[in-house]
Amino acid sequence: MKRISRLELLNTGTELLFGSVLNTHLSYLGQQLFSLGLRIQRQTTVPDGYAIRDAILEAASRSDALLITGGLGPTSDDVTRDIVAELTNRPLEYVEPIFEKIRARFDRRGLRMSERISRQAYVPRGATVLDNDFGTAPGLYVPATEQLPYMFLLPGPPRELRPMFEAKVVPLLRGLTAETDLQAIVYRTSGLGESYLEEMVGKDLEALPGIEVGYCARVGEVDLRLIGGAKTLAEADRLAREKLGDYIVTTEAKELEEVVVQRLTECRASLATAESCTGGHLADRLTNVPGASAVLLEGHVTYSNAAKESTLSVPRHLLETVGAVSEEVAAAMAEGVRTRANADFGLSTTGIAGPGGGTEAKPVGTVFIGLAEKGGKTRVEKHFFPSDRPTFKQMVSQYALNLLRRRL
Amino acid sequence: MKRISRLELLNTGTELLFGSVLNTHLSYLGQQLFSLGLRIQRQTTVPDGYAIRDAILEAASRSDALLITGGLGPTSDDVTRDIVAELTNRPLEYVEPIFEKIRARFDRRGLRMSERISRQAYVPRGATVLDNDFGTAPGLYVPATEQLPYMFLLPGPPRELRPMFEAKVVPLLRGLTAETDLQAIVYRTSGLGESYLEEMVGKDLEALPGIEVGYCARVGEVDLRLIGGAKTLAEADRLAREKLGDYIVTTEAKELEEVVVQRLTECRASLATAESCTGGHLADRLTNVPGASAVLLEGHVTYSNAAKESTLSVPRHLLETVGAVSEEVAAAMAEGVRTRANADFGLSTTGIAGPGGGTEAKPVGTVFIGLAEKGGKTRVEKHFFPSDRPTFKQMVSQYALNLLRRRL
Repeated sequence: MKRISRLELLNTGTELLFGSVLNTHLSYLGQQLFSLGLRIQRQTTVPDGYAIRDAILEAASRSDALLITGGLGPTSDDVTRDIVAELTNRPLEYVEPIFEKIRARFDRRGLRMSERISRQAYVPRGATVLDNDFGTAPGLYVPATEQLPYMFLLPGPPRELRPMFEAKVVPLLRGLTAETDLQAIVYRTSGLGESYLEEMVGKDLEALPGIEVGYCARVGEVDLRLIGGAKTLAEADRLAREKLGDYIVTTEAKELEEVVVQRLTECRASLATAESCTGGHLADRLTNVPGASAVLLEGHVTYSNAAKESTLSVPRHLLETVGAVSEEVAAAMAEGVRTRANADFGLSTTGIAGPGGGTEAKPVGTVFIGLAEKGGKTRVEKHFFPSDRPTFKQMVSQYALNLLRRRL
Repeated sequence: MKRISRLELLNTGTELLFGSVLNTHLSYLGQQLFSLGLRIQRQTTVPDGYAIRDAILEAASRSDALLITGGLGPTSDDVTRDIVAELTNRPLEYVEPIFEKIRARFDRRGLRMSERISRQAYVPRGATVLDNDFGTAPGLYVPATEQLPYMFLLPGPPRELRPMFEAKVVPLLRGLTAETDLQAIVYRTSGLGESYLEEMVGKDLEALPGIEVGYCARVGEVDLRLIGGAKTLAEADRLAREKLGDYIVTTEAKELEEVVVQRLTECRASLATAESCTGGHLADRLTNVPGASAVLLEGHVTYSNAAKESTLSVPRHLLETVGAVSEEVAAAMAEGVRTRANADFGLSTTGIAGPGGGTEAKPVGTVFIGLAEKGGKTRVEKHFFPSDRPTFKQMVSQYALNLLRRRL
């Protein structure tokens, strides 16, 4: 049996190249395969039609296995099934139970079935049918030959592909995967730029034999990725943790807001937010996490001075003297919202998102972040993030969440 | 001069194949290129390193132009610049003004610059530098040769790539693209499902000769796309507007929240928001629009009943009798926040985002949206959007914004 070590992903669909649908398959499958010790070596998107044939033949020379998404539906541009049947010399055969399953699905929903649906009941001879519990098109697994890789044909819609992949494809792949002793750790860090991070750890880590080091920067965070054998990786891990310390947010596949909600829950601590320049983005991120309602008591978006006074009890004299974008007002907002909600922590943001509103003393990008705590001292951080509005809001919310995380 | 008709996209970055970052380039660039009359014929993702070289050579045989993203940064895995220099026989030359621009950027932010940054100041001889106004790595445009396509090297982070593409690459592509007399109109609609939309307009539009009709569904909105010659397109446009009427949000490349902020500004009307289940997402979307601070007076995230009472003056007896997720509470929240802020409109959301909290009478996905207005009647809409949390929040905020838009 040919063992899989080189794997590629082929996404088919004109709508993907048109930009009308975001392709989330690569991100999802990349993470799933990684946990099996597999990496996608290349991903390709081609339009519906015979470009699929060329792409399969090209991938065949580079890979042991090929995941193909899309083109299994009932309409005339769904040709993946036919192309694979032709390439593998496996004639298409009508499989009655597939048709019955599809018909039952339509009946349950009280829908009329169109003529074309029966196309989906044809299977290349000898292929394994992967049941689709969330749609009509079944997936297919076609064994490898001398010339062609293992092929897994999966439906395009993520809500159909994902459960099928986890229930049907993962067990098949497990049986076909070469043993590897390589492991990986991904450190999500916040508060450091990419080049700083590399300066802090790059030389030492790259000096370890057999360790692959990678970096990935996003807004307000950088991932450090280490891959290697168990023993060297343990050494690299010690080194990374020693050098990076508290900059490490997590080594799990978690967002910063998930880590914050989890820590708050563990500490049985509650939070209230007072946002000016982030305009609700901080609360929005927190409430994306299931269970956030148990720790986030309330949040307020107080753009105007009037709202800062009436909702957060920020003293008017402060707003009139030092101005809304100031250390003092950030502190008063954090304390005001904490007191108002009787929460353990109060977190505030006030700054100039732009494009308008900047001055020489306080240019666009200036921001103050406040953190008040019950029975503790209020901290305020000043930052400068000149950028577009959404990036500014993301940066500020990132630093605010990280300020709170480091305190927990 | 070689004119561009066949175009490919090459995304580089191990992190993309790893699944740690979602690749949004294809979707963004697909839409942008469409308005230039260009389509992406194939998209490929390869890891950092010399796989980039192979992919460029393969694309060369199929395409006139190649957009390459990523690998322009300061770290050792950023090798796109070097590979293109080698392939095109253009030695890398140090360009002082690029270095100075990067240094000025660091100085403005009060940051120390790492040694490695200077890599970004090297340019293949004869390439055109595309300034990066949102990051350090400049883009590059390398003219075509007999063997190689036009190449556009763009930075990986979307916040850097997008403004660079629109300001620098679009004008270059315009000059290199074959003339076409086809025009396009994209109608952004909200409040209709894709199949309903197709039922309303599909047959009539497809009956017009020479009109290409396309649909694209996203969360809570559907785009209708018409392409054709000027005269037939005008006829199709009349038909589409007549049939779809108020469902059309805009035919410009604008988000629903931009349209809402613009209309509020034009009407000199003000808004306050009271969010339970959307958790700040509604305010976040509104405050992404420059100028939102002039119309959004305040916003509140009131998860708990206590916060609904104290901040929005929702009567306790309502919360105790009909419950927080109800028509009555949605109305009271909208009226409470409108009165509190003395705004022209008050917009509220209350529902069950899940995964927990559903009951038989009010299952996960149930939501009420309230709209109160000064001197007018309060409206409440009930909807049912069973899905994951982020999709639920997006759907609810979409319907809330659309409810307000149709009133303006």
